[in-house]
Amino acid sequence: MALPVARTFWFGPLTIPLAQLFLLTKHTLGIVNIKPIRPGHVLVVTRRQVARFNELSQDEIADLFAQGQRVSKIIERLYSADGLTLCIQDGSAAGQTVPHVHLHVIPRHIGDFANNDDIYSVLDGTGKVPLQTHIDNEQRRPRSLADMTAEAEILRREIGDWDSETVT
Amino acid sequence: MALPVARTFWFGPLTIPLAQLFLLTKHTLGIVNIKPIRPGHVLVVTRRQVARFNELSQDEIADLFAQGQRVSKIIERLYSADGLTLCIQDGSAAGQTVPHVHLHVIPRHIGDFANNDDIYSVLDGTGKVPLQTHIDNEQRRPRSLADMTAEAEILRREIGDWDSETVT
Repeated sequence: MALPVARTFWFGPLTIPLAQLFLLTKHTLGIVNIKPIRPGHVLVVTRRQVARFNELSQDEIADLFAQGQRVSKIIERLYSADGLTLCIQDGSAAGQTVPHVHLHVIPRHIGDFANNDDIYSVLDGTGKVPLQTHIDNEQRRPRSLADMTAEAEILRREIGDWDSETVT
Repeated sequence: MALPVARTFWFGPLTIPLAQLFLLTKHTLGIVNIKPIRPGHVLVVTRRQVARFNELSQDEIADLFAQGQRVSKIIERLYSADGLTLCIQDGSAAGQTVPHVHLHVIPRHIGDFANNDDIYSVLDGTGKVPLQTHIDNEQRRPRSLADMTAEAEILRREIGDWDSETVT
């Protein structure tokens, strides 16, 4: 599908390369993850750059999670997942490192971790499972731009065209 | 505040004692947690008993998270939290043990865990932090009914009256 006209979208202080964007609505963005802890781990982000969940309007909340459901259905199917971990680290005390509200959508598979919730101990690298650690930590090794672009292209095809009215 | 007229609300296969209910809207319930991993760890639950997030309607999603925001603001203030962990274990493969969509609202404090996200390794008891373990596990020791009732009363006062139109 076509990318929106060139413009800048933000994830905290970071500009989002359009090639990494796969969903765009009036209030919400979907982006692939430079440092996923599992294949298919993506982020659903508010377009307005606010750090805390309590700053969101009712319209922003409704769209964030409506899109979160839309994305979670696609991720579960594409990655043949058995379930999903859906989580917001709301504030730095909760492990948030990018001060911009974002929902983690992480496909889960039976037996993917030694213990179901070891996935969470990976969030700050305390986990012992053989995965990239530091989901929200600068110490993680980023994946290749080519990988991210290819994944975003697949997800954009699943999402379908942008709603041009929302690209404003 | 007054409790709604006696009736039955469900959390998966479990009936919810009215004394543990602190929020009730057309689509959403708020209940205190019999086995919190931190003081103030409460659950925001869909009134309709469905297991997976992908089964929710747009109205149910909007209300679940609008109420989740409402509850999170109260919990953060009452428990002087620095942040919040907001999480849905969507399916048993994600650690869900009660097959009914529920949002965990967990107040976080700087330094509350040796590592920020050790909180998650507590979800299935793999964590080494000195807290009750097994957030979603039958092995946890339940707290007293008196404690739960007292907490629910405080939260009901913060929420205010039920919307009588929704108690149907």
